[in-house]
Amino acid sequence: MKIALAQLDYHIGNFDGNLNKMLAAVEQAKTQGADIICFGELAVCGYPPRDFLEFDDFIQRCYTSVDVLKNASRDIAIVVGAPSRNPVPEGKDLYNSAYFLYGGEILGVQHKALLPTYDIFDEYRYFEPARVFHPVAFKGKKIALSVCEDIWNVGNENPLYTICPLDEMMADAPDFILNISASPFNYAHAALRIHTVRANVERYNIPLFYTNHVGAQTDIIFDGGSIVMSPDGLVFDEMPYFEECLRVYELVEVQAGGRSAEQPKEKVRLIHDALLVGIRDYFRKLGFSKAILGLSGGIDSAVTAVLAAKALGPENVRVLLLPSQYSSDHSVDDARQLAVNLGIAYDIVPIRPIFEAFEAALQPFFEGLAFNVTEENIKARSRGTLLMAMSNKFGNILLNTTNKSEMAVGYGTLYGDLCGGLAVLADVYKTEVYALAAYLNKDGEIIPQNSIVKPPSAELRPGQKDSDSLPPYEILDALLYQYIECRKGPRELAALGFDETLVARVLRMVNLNEFKREQAAPVLRVSSKGFGMGRRMPIVGKYLS
Amino acid sequence: MKIALAQLDYHIGNFDGNLNKMLAAVEQAKTQGADIICFGELAVCGYPPRDFLEFDDFIQRCYTSVDVLKNASRDIAIVVGAPSRNPVPEGKDLYNSAYFLYGGEILGVQHKALLPTYDIFDEYRYFEPARVFHPVAFKGKKIALSVCEDIWNVGNENPLYTICPLDEMMADAPDFILNISASPFNYAHAALRIHTVRANVERYNIPLFYTNHVGAQTDIIFDGGSIVMSPDGLVFDEMPYFEECLRVYELVEVQAGGRSAEQPKEKVRLIHDALLVGIRDYFRKLGFSKAILGLSGGIDSAVTAVLAAKALGPENVRVLLLPSQYSSDHSVDDARQLAVNLGIAYDIVPIRPIFEAFEAALQPFFEGLAFNVTEENIKARSRGTLLMAMSNKFGNILLNTTNKSEMAVGYGTLYGDLCGGLAVLADVYKTEVYALAAYLNKDGEIIPQNSIVKPPSAELRPGQKDSDSLPPYEILDALLYQYIECRKGPRELAALGFDETLVARVLRMVNLNEFKREQAAPVLRVSSKGFGMGRRMPIVGKYLS
Repeated sequence: MKIALAQLDYHIGNFDGNLNKMLAAVEQAKTQGADIICFGELAVCGYPPRDFLEFDDFIQRCYTSVDVLKNASRDIAIVVGAPSRNPVPEGKDLYNSAYFLYGGEILGVQHKALLPTYDIFDEYRYFEPARVFHPVAFKGKKIALSVCEDIWNVGNENPLYTICPLDEMMADAPDFILNISASPFNYAHAALRIHTVRANVERYNIPLFYTNHVGAQTDIIFDGGSIVMSPDGLVFDEMPYFEECLRVYELVEVQAGGRSAEQPKEKVRLIHDALLVGIRDYFRKLGFSKAILGLSGGIDSAVTAVLAAKALGPENVRVLLLPSQYSSDHSVDDARQLAVNLGIAYDIVPIRPIFEAFEAALQPFFEGLAFNVTEENIKARSRGTLLMAMSNKFGNILLNTTNKSEMAVGYGTLYGDLCGGLAVLADVYKTEVYALAAYLNKDGEIIPQNSIVKPPSAELRPGQKDSDSLPPYEILDALLYQYIECRKGPRELAALGFDETLVARVLRMVNLNEFKREQAAPVLRVSSKGFGMGRRMPIVGKYLS
Repeated sequence: MKIALAQLDYHIGNFDGNLNKMLAAVEQAKTQGADIICFGELAVCGYPPRDFLEFDDFIQRCYTSVDVLKNASRDIAIVVGAPSRNPVPEGKDLYNSAYFLYGGEILGVQHKALLPTYDIFDEYRYFEPARVFHPVAFKGKKIALSVCEDIWNVGNENPLYTICPLDEMMADAPDFILNISASPFNYAHAALRIHTVRANVERYNIPLFYTNHVGAQTDIIFDGGSIVMSPDGLVFDEMPYFEECLRVYELVEVQAGGRSAEQPKEKVRLIHDALLVGIRDYFRKLGFSKAILGLSGGIDSAVTAVLAAKALGPENVRVLLLPSQYSSDHSVDDARQLAVNLGIAYDIVPIRPIFEAFEAALQPFFEGLAFNVTEENIKARSRGTLLMAMSNKFGNILLNTTNKSEMAVGYGTLYGDLCGGLAVLADVYKTEVYALAAYLNKDGEIIPQNSIVKPPSAELRPGQKDSDSLPPYEILDALLYQYIECRKGPRELAALGFDETLVARVLRMVNLNEFKREQAAPVLRVSSKGFGMGRRMPIVGKYLS
């Protein structure tokens, strides 16, 4: 028996696009003699469809797509994810289902039981959990169908759920497991995925075929990396990361095992590749091709510009240099050099006259009051307005260049440098931005060395440096990681050796700035805990603030 | 037996504040001879605590508060909501629990079984559902304890859950039901709440005491309206809306029934009162007292200004009039008249010089290109920057004045008139804003009649009117309501009589503008489906767009 896995880049709500992509893969799998082809979880509508699922019309269109695939299944079995309606009034109205289609018929449907409802996931918002589990019989084999999370309650010390759905199927002695997933990327996820697949294979002693999505849906990036694991616990195959792929496997070979084809997992490269996909898909799926951003001469905007040029092509990236009276000469030089190195269009627009017009308008109110963050914000907002004007006039999406460290502590001006359609680096800590810069420069200097080595500064005040008001980024980032990703509280952070006063100050900064993140652009998610849908904090909360 | 209900305004994460408030209520109930006092769901930490629940330190502080209340329960039983730890590793780590404290001991704990995970609710993100249900025995009575949603699966045609927790308790023949809730306001909710309480009383034939929260937590407003219902299905008492309240009830009197004390539920008044609470609590809980906003002479900013002045006091509200060359004279006059009527400080800052500075800076790029939405946006962003500068310099929170109709179709400039810490009217359709204006003027003209009767216009272009590009608001709002609140799709909308071309156009506008709402200020929620946490849509989705 030959099993094809297809990891595809679906587009939420683009039923025709998703369907055509799958039908093409079906034809390709047939020419390669496959008996079964597997697509991803909720592949007909894309993942996560969120509240579109509450529209009957949307569900109807999902059914229509399943129907078309059913008709395409005369000579090959098709396994595909789609929502399905709960036939009884009690419980949620939908299931998250895996359809097994063959011979123009529905041979089996397995609903998902474990509904991830944490971090970016909201599945129990929409779906009723499955309570019945049976393998599908096909060409003399019994196949344990499962959807994503249903294999994830195995191999954890603190399991999130009280059952393991595949346990229930083992009474029927299935020959192998098919798992259709939509499991988003973070830089540590591929290793965890293999660990989880192995925990299942070790528990059930049968091969497991795991299909994932690729591509980005706004903030959420899928890396593919679909897995075939043999009963010996070796990775028989791992599909490439961040690329569509279709491969056909001979079951007896997978059963035999003895082959290990795991890919290397280098953090900085994974983040780099993920961000390129994130940028590219955001533009493509919204029907845009051109980006604009402001270059400050600093490392964050430099890295963002290089990523944008690689993702969209240098001809599609335009930058503005927006110096104020406090910008140093080297900032403009560094920014200009970067634009030249990248071969992207750049222009210089001094913001001083605009700032002065604001100053004049506000003079009756501000007369005699000291220069403070207000004036810094006016500069940042003047830049934001100029960039948005170019975006509006020429149809370039503005890319936001804020990093995760700044976003965490609130070093950024709402409606100023926090403007943008997509925040490229806001899930990448400053120290990780340096690693990305080194990675981008590995085959020759693209980002001027000066942008990398100079002390970070917002240049909103004469002589200003980040280190005036923040601890060194090595310490800040380590602390933020423990607080944000690992959810450590003040006592746990002190126990890890962080200074208690610093802990209190940083946690307070993070919590007080929730209102800024609430209004921030979507953030490409590359860590296990990014800002956005995955982290939900009360704005008026008075905790550690 | 005397039962006290306390509906209080808790503050998320403010453990000391919440505790002191409850301890004062305990003393008050004791002086009134109460045997039991009931507080709200998760009262120790406030609702919704969101991802604070993922911090062990936060949970520890909840336990500490329960301990203090336990010690305060020597002479009176205290029923209070708090998270509690799941003792087994399988399943989520927490329960959402009701504690029954008496004599310095925990007499009983009932976990919540039905975990609302829809609209603004994310409870299954944090909590394991209860599987065991037993009444608590106290002074010869058996009391069915329940938390909020656990009474909500009764009386619906399409129940969201497969069990009714109180059904399980009836084997033990409880004498009455105590339900501790955190059930957010919308203008139709109070009636629904009574319907649901009645469905339970009719099913179980015993009295039901229902306690709610009051006050706002950022976007989410609680209206109180706690209910005591007798077995005859009459509302023995309904506590006031939007006010803290403590009342003591004699159980035998409630059992006897025959008294109906339901309050009137007038939509416009409920919305009005809710918005005042929403504004007041946002400021108070963040430690601010002063607001600023821009007055355009139109109805939205006028209504927002009146609400702000009523909520915060006229001395705490400051407005700017920010005319451009396209603003009509009457706009400035109407805005000025409103400020005078309200007795609030106002200033006029023409934006033309700022606009011209932007024009000059952009002239090399825009030369020869037609005036379009770009220039309109520059004006809106110049205003936003001026208002934010005043906010930054003087510590006034900027109030956003966008209405729900505009927010839905994307008529608003990101980083321009969409600026603000809190969107006061963005869950109020334009037609409802008119009703609010009439309500605010009912005892004399505060909002100038001209602001109400003139055709709506953004005044960003000469002679511009909303009706140039939008259908009449009566039609638009009715369509938006069916799409947003009732989740009707294109065919259902056509079946309701809406023009198919208009439906396609409006739905496309709503869906294409998801990116703006993603970056909008928190919206005071007064309807059953507001923008914000309660409505989650994919930005890159290609559905009806």
